[in-house]
Amino acid sequence: MTILINDSTLRDGQHAVKHQLTAAQLRSYATAADKTGVAIVEVGHGNGLGASSYQVGRAALSDEEMLTTVRESLQNSKMGVFMLPGWGTIADLTKALAYGTDVVRIGTHCTEATLAERHLGWLREQGAEAHAVLMMSHMASPAELADQAELLVGYGAQAVGIMDSAGSLLPQDVTARITAMRMQVKVPLIFHAHNNLGMAVANSLAAVQAGAGIIDGCARGFGAGAGNTQLEVLIPVLERLGFNTGIDLYHFLDAADLAARELMVVPPMIDSLGIVSGLAGVFSGFKSPVLNHAGSAGVDARDVFFELGRRQIIAGQEDLIVEVVAELKRAAS
Amino acid sequence: MTILINDSTLRDGQHAVKHQLTAAQLRSYATAADKTGVAIVEVGHGNGLGASSYQVGRAALSDEEMLTTVRESLQNSKMGVFMLPGWGTIADLTKALAYGTDVVRIGTHCTEATLAERHLGWLREQGAEAHAVLMMSHMASPAELADQAELLVGYGAQAVGIMDSAGSLLPQDVTARITAMRMQVKVPLIFHAHNNLGMAVANSLAAVQAGAGIIDGCARGFGAGAGNTQLEVLIPVLERLGFNTGIDLYHFLDAADLAARELMVVPPMIDSLGIVSGLAGVFSGFKSPVLNHAGSAGVDARDVFFELGRRQIIAGQEDLIVEVVAELKRAAS
Repeated sequence: MTILINDSTLRDGQHAVKHQLTAAQLRSYATAADKTGVAIVEVGHGNGLGASSYQVGRAALSDEEMLTTVRESLQNSKMGVFMLPGWGTIADLTKALAYGTDVVRIGTHCTEATLAERHLGWLREQGAEAHAVLMMSHMASPAELADQAELLVGYGAQAVGIMDSAGSLLPQDVTARITAMRMQVKVPLIFHAHNNLGMAVANSLAAVQAGAGIIDGCARGFGAGAGNTQLEVLIPVLERLGFNTGIDLYHFLDAADLAARELMVVPPMIDSLGIVSGLAGVFSGFKSPVLNHAGSAGVDARDVFFELGRRQIIAGQEDLIVEVVAELKRAAS
Repeated sequence: MTILINDSTLRDGQHAVKHQLTAAQLRSYATAADKTGVAIVEVGHGNGLGASSYQVGRAALSDEEMLTTVRESLQNSKMGVFMLPGWGTIADLTKALAYGTDVVRIGTHCTEATLAERHLGWLREQGAEAHAVLMMSHMASPAELADQAELLVGYGAQAVGIMDSAGSLLPQDVTARITAMRMQVKVPLIFHAHNNLGMAVANSLAAVQAGAGIIDGCARGFGAGAGNTQLEVLIPVLERLGFNTGIDLYHFLDAADLAARELMVVPPMIDSLGIVSGLAGVFSGFKSPVLNHAGSAGVDARDVFFELGRRQIIAGQEDLIVEVVAELKRAAS
C-alpha cells in the first residue's frame, strides 16, 4: 500500500523559528526534498496563508515570495499550502492557485467543519485539489470526528483527516479515531502528529495501520517545542512494515541533515512544559504567555496548563490564561 | 498494576558524557530522583561495574566513589548496579554489595545467558536481589529469548528481561518478545529501550501492556546518540493508562529539568546515523569508529552500518568495521 508523505518542514516547521525562514533556506530545503520523491512539500507561515501578523508573528517573507521560491524549486513533488478560514480568505486562495499551488489544505477546529464549507466549495469550482483537516482532535470523540469528516467530504474535500495539535493522543486513541473515520468516509485519510508525549512516530504508524493514507511530518521533527513527526524516522519504519512511500531513504536523510544544519536554531526537544501541555491537551503555542503570566504571579506554570486543559482552552482564548493565573494565585494565598 | 521504574540516568546516561559525571552531579541527581518515588536508581560506568578502562573510556570516578556518593543520597529508592560478566568480576560484585547496593543486574548478549550462571548463583548465595537482562534482543526470536530467560531464572534471577540495545525494535516486536517470555517464566519482566527509531516510549508502553513489570529509562532520555526512554514522558503516559508507578510527576519533571541543566552537554537527538544504526540493528556505540574509518576511506558511513548489520556485528568485533570499510571501498573502485 502506498502512503503519501506531506512534508511540512517549510510550513509547520516555521513555528520553531517564528516564521523567519529566508528565500535561500526555502530554496535549499525544497530542492533537497524534491529529490527524495516526497509527495507534497508544504510551504508558508506556520499558521498558513494570510496568517502573518503582529499577533501571531510576521513571517520573514510574504506568501507570494514563499510560493514563488518553492514553486521554482520543485520538479517532482507537489506544492501544498495550508489555510485557516478567518486567518486567510478566498483572496489568499486565489493568489495561492495563481502562484502554482497543487494542493490546498483547509483546517478548522475539530468541531467546526462547517467553517470550511465555502472555501472547499470554491476550491473545487476552480478545479483545485482540496484537502481538509480537523485540529485539536483529542477534544472530540471518534464518532464526532467521523461526522465532521463526512461534512468535509460533502463540501468537496478530496482527503480529510485529523491533527493532534496538542500532541496529546496515544496510539490507541489514534487507532480509534482513524478507524471511525474510515468507516464513514471513502476519501484518503490524513494524520498529523506532534511529539509532546514522544508518540509522534508511533501514532503515525498507528494511523497508517488503521487505514490513513497521507501522513504529515517534518525533517528532524522541525517544529515548535516537542516538534512534529520526524519524517526520516517514520519513512523507513513504514517501509520496513511493507508500506511504500516512494521516498529514497538516503536522499531524505540528506534533506534532514540539511534541515538540521541550515534551518534550525535549536533542535526540537520534549521539555517538561511540552509534556505538561501534551498531558493537559493544550496547544503548546501557549507556552510563552503561560510562562510570562505565571512567572510574574509566582504561580506554577504546570498548574496553569493543567487548569487550561480542564477548561478546554483553544486558540484565540489567550485571555483565559490571565484569568486562570489570577485564580490560582488567589487560591494559593 | 504497579510498574517499577529503573532510573538509569546515572548509569546508561553516562554514555552521553563518556562516563565523566562528577560526585556533585551524582549527588544532585540522585537526591532529586530519590524524592520522586522512583523504585531503583542505577549508578556506574555506562558499561557497568569494572568496565572503566582505556578501551571503552575511563570514568571520572571509581566504582567505589560512585557507589558511596549515590548511597548517601538515597533514602527511598533502591540503589542498582549493572555488570557484564567478563567486564566485571565477582570481586566487583563483592564490592558493590559491601557499598550498599540493593539490586544487581547481570547482562549478557541475548544468546549467551549461560555466561551469567556463576554470577547469578553467587549473588543469590549472598542473599542479594539479582536481576538479569538479554542485550541486543532484536537478534534473537521471541522463542529463543524465552528459552534464554528460563535459563536465567534457573540460575537464580529474580527478574529477567531484554534490552533493545540497538534501538531497532518496533512495538509489535516488543509485544511478541515480552509475550513469549511471559508464557515461559513467572518472575517480573524487564524492558529497556533505545530511541533510534523514535519508539522508546511506545515500545516501553507495548512492553507494559504485554506484561513487563520493570521498565528502564533516563531523565530527558539521557544517553548516547538517540538516547534512552524519556522517563518523565513514560511515567504520566503509564499513569494515564491506569498503571501505577508510585512516582510524583512534578518531582520527576523537576529531576528531569535538573538533569537537562546539570548533567547534559547536548540533549539526546535522533540524527541520521542514529536512525541508520537502529535500522541496521547495530549498536550505536560504533558510530565514532565507523565515521573515522569510513571518512578516511571515502566510503558512505550509512553503507557501512547496513553491511555491519547484515553481518550481525556485536560489541568486541570492532575489527569488522575496518574489514567492511575496505571491502566497500574495493567494491566502489
